Amino acid sequence: MSDQLKLPSRTTDFSEWYNQVVQRADLADYAPVRGCMIVKPYGWGLWENIQAALDKRFKATGHVNAGFPLLIPQSFITREAKHIEGFAPELAVVTHGGGQELEEPLVVRPTSETIIGHTYAKWVQSYRDLPILINLWNSVVRWEMRTRLFLRTMEFWWQEGHTAHATYEEAEAETRQMLRVYTDFAENEAAVPVIPGRKSEAERFPGADMTYSIEAMMGDTKALQAGTSHNLGQNFAKSFEIKYLDKNNEQQFCWTTSWGLSTRFIGAIIMVHGDDQGLILPPKLAPHQIVMVPIYKNDAEKGPVLEAVDRAQKQLVAHDFRVKVDMREDLTPGFKFNEWEMRGVPLRIEIGPKDVAKGTVALARRDKPGKEGKSFVSQDGLEGIIAEALADLHASLYDRALAFRKANTYDPKDYTEFKQVMEKGWAFSWWCGDRTCETQIKDETKATTRCIPLEQPGGEGVCVHCGQPAKEKAIFGRAY
Amino acid sequence: MSDQLKLPSRTTDFSEWYNQVVQRADLADYAPVRGCMIVKPYGWGLWENIQAALDKRFKATGHVNAGFPLLIPQSFITREAKHIEGFAPELAVVTHGGGQELEEPLVVRPTSETIIGHTYAKWVQSYRDLPILINLWNSVVRWEMRTRLFLRTMEFWWQEGHTAHATYEEAEAETRQMLRVYTDFAENEAAVPVIPGRKSEAERFPGADMTYSIEAMMGDTKALQAGTSHNLGQNFAKSFEIKYLDKNNEQQFCWTTSWGLSTRFIGAIIMVHGDDQGLILPPKLAPHQIVMVPIYKNDAEKGPVLEAVDRAQKQLVAHDFRVKVDMREDLTPGFKFNEWEMRGVPLRIEIGPKDVAKGTVALARRDKPGKEGKSFVSQDGLEGIIAEALADLHASLYDRALAFRKANTYDPKDYTEFKQVMEKGWAFSWWCGDRTCETQIKDETKATTRCIPLEQPGGEGVCVHCGQPAKEKAIFGRAY
Repeated sequence: MSDQLKLPSRTTDFSEWYNQVVQRADLADYAPVRGCMIVKPYGWGLWENIQAALDKRFKATGHVNAGFPLLIPQSFITREAKHIEGFAPELAVVTHGGGQELEEPLVVRPTSETIIGHTYAKWVQSYRDLPILINLWNSVVRWEMRTRLFLRTMEFWWQEGHTAHATYEEAEAETRQMLRVYTDFAENEAAVPVIPGRKSEAERFPGADMTYSIEAMMGDTKALQAGTSHNLGQNFAKSFEIKYLDKNNEQQFCWTTSWGLSTRFIGAIIMVHGDDQGLILPPKLAPHQIVMVPIYKNDAEKGPVLEAVDRAQKQLVAHDFRVKVDMREDLTPGFKFNEWEMRGVPLRIEIGPKDVAKGTVALARRDKPGKEGKSFVSQDGLEGIIAEALADLHASLYDRALAFRKANTYDPKDYTEFKQVMEKGWAFSWWCGDRTCETQIKDETKATTRCIPLEQPGGEGVCVHCGQPAKEKAIFGRAY
Repeated sequence: MSDQLKLPSRTTDFSEWYNQVVQRADLADYAPVRGCMIVKPYGWGLWENIQAALDKRFKATGHVNAGFPLLIPQSFITREAKHIEGFAPELAVVTHGGGQELEEPLVVRPTSETIIGHTYAKWVQSYRDLPILINLWNSVVRWEMRTRLFLRTMEFWWQEGHTAHATYEEAEAETRQMLRVYTDFAENEAAVPVIPGRKSEAERFPGADMTYSIEAMMGDTKALQAGTSHNLGQNFAKSFEIKYLDKNNEQQFCWTTSWGLSTRFIGAIIMVHGDDQGLILPPKLAPHQIVMVPIYKNDAEKGPVLEAVDRAQKQLVAHDFRVKVDMREDLTPGFKFNEWEMRGVPLRIEIGPKDVAKGTVALARRDKPGKEGKSFVSQDGLEGIIAEALADLHASLYDRALAFRKANTYDPKDYTEFKQVMEKGWAFSWWCGDRTCETQIKDETKATTRCIPLEQPGGEGVCVHCGQPAKEKAIFGRAY
């Protein structure tokens, strides 16, 4: 990290800003296979915290984890008509194994609905075996030509939940529950405000009866789908014969769901919170919540400063804060400040000889540049001050992102204004729900329906595009 | 789990006993692709606890996790001569992606030394970039024809640590350190006694200068290699040009290591601790440490019993025990006892009307059958009694396994006796270290050198096979 050149500004070149932040914050690197990604330890630490925050919520809602194979018989993919249509062009195919050509090629899983369908059909016999509530943490491969680290890579890491139920109502309740889990995670862990809603028919997962998503606005006002939850109806149950004997001893098909959130979410965190100095990580997920930088000019100063640093570190670690102490000898404090700003550590503590004398530390907030974010606080009770600062920082990040989204979400009065709006943000507009209408909007503006928010204003209106009666408003925007 | 037939006895058919336990304890299932495995939630819960216990130790010794791709250019595998020799026959090859034939085929990683080598070569420039201490949690694919759940499967889950150092001494210290970490984990978490030692040259990892392993004796006296740690010397550093500028500004090759422990370890847990009633799980890793079974005949009894069960559960969960309450209505207590015995839950608590009246619970230990393992204990201070029972159970499992290993490890006086010993256990014998001698022993007895234990008796002897002078004793045995 000897490179301390300025980043491109977010306002002039958001895309290049993003690419540079990912690499210079040491989150990820390009792999030798085009389109694949190496998640570096700092990025993986962030992902581990995301995993822990989600896993806790999955378990609290009755789910358990399991391990499913990454190789799937190619024929499985073809068994659900819409599924094959959606995934066939993206498959990585294993044709040789152990030095022999295979009789039937295998695919590297692009997602696991098919092998889950095959397996649940074996596991489920009776209503007593239901529901099945399983989640998988793994990686999947989808052949992609235009890739960007975290946002779109050939292999990505994610979780995929797969559940089977006796009734439609249960499956729908599960689908909605997981959407709420994602919303709660995004807002309360990542400080990313999201809009939970239904996807339009055109934007559904291949093989789903209904797809729900959470949509977030990035720093360039584009939309990013940050998590999805699918009610698969009986589609996969029928393709794979997932059947159960009900209480009346009659054969019924199951109702299944699937839901996923991926390393793509890291892209959302970067693009929602980052600034021209680099990354800003939400405190609850940051690998290091606090970086401590000792400041001294000579050996006489060094001893007492390091003692105070050591004491403060122990104090904070004892209260379960994630603390990094930057002890590197050959770098100036200023260089270290810049580096940890680039890497988005929420709080910085500096301790120098004057702080030792006064029993204070200098505390700097990553989200407020310069003097505004800096204060001198007592070493006594430091843990309380830090807890408050982190909570306040989380709230500030959330509020700022929400204000930004509101400021850039419009209610255009007609289609002419709608088209102008699509150059600079989102529209929340009445929409007739018609697929043709949606396609025309997309062709004319590059914008898609992001979702039909669960929260609606009520009443009725006319479609912003075709003028037909409309019962719901949709979010429109250009998307990643 | 309605099937409550007896298992085959371990003494008459250990292999079939193993296969049935894996499935009837609900640990794993066969996948549609031959040789692949589905790890079911109960087995995955065990693996999650193994992961947590190891991950804690990796982080305490300065390692961080990262994510590396599962697709590797085929040409990478050929760059280290011994590595390709070892892995070429086992590769799964992706030849098509996104509907096109690929210019260069990709392999699904059989292990990641090559892509790590390629990447570290990019990341390491100067001695300041060293050491790199990275671990990966993932799955790997090695084409296998004869597979058994957990023990040998085409895909398995594991961790692979990959480190790079400036000197041989540092790399060797790392290799040995991770062997100690595995030993500590095996003995203090899984209650599996192991012998840490060096592998013979013939048994080394393809591409390693030195391989260390921990070896455990299974319930049929066969050996299982339960974890390995490799000093890769400069082999991969030279093949992939992992070089650094030292303090004198001179180019040097790095020294690298790798080390791994896999889902195979679950096989060891099953085969070391299980008995004719099924699995016995070590308390520190068991998904459920305690199962509670309420016992009542009618509604009048049910209310107070369930109240007492609820109270005891909360009491134990508050003290961080992992408790499962079996509330199923349509099954008898006896059926439930059998099922949880099959699944190896260390402790069972029964609460019936008499217990409610007396303020007691019945406590049954999985490792001691019938009355011997059963006691009636007070509900007051139950958490202390449980903590003690779990600690004692861990120690008993360990002691029993160690006594079994000692009772089945021999010091044969000559090669004739050695051959007899190989029918029934291990030999700890003087060995000349010669590869030809080792091959002959293998051909004649099906036994291999398991390891040359780090702990040696001292002195010298003569090789049990060839009679030549020998400086060290080796463990010989038939292996999984």
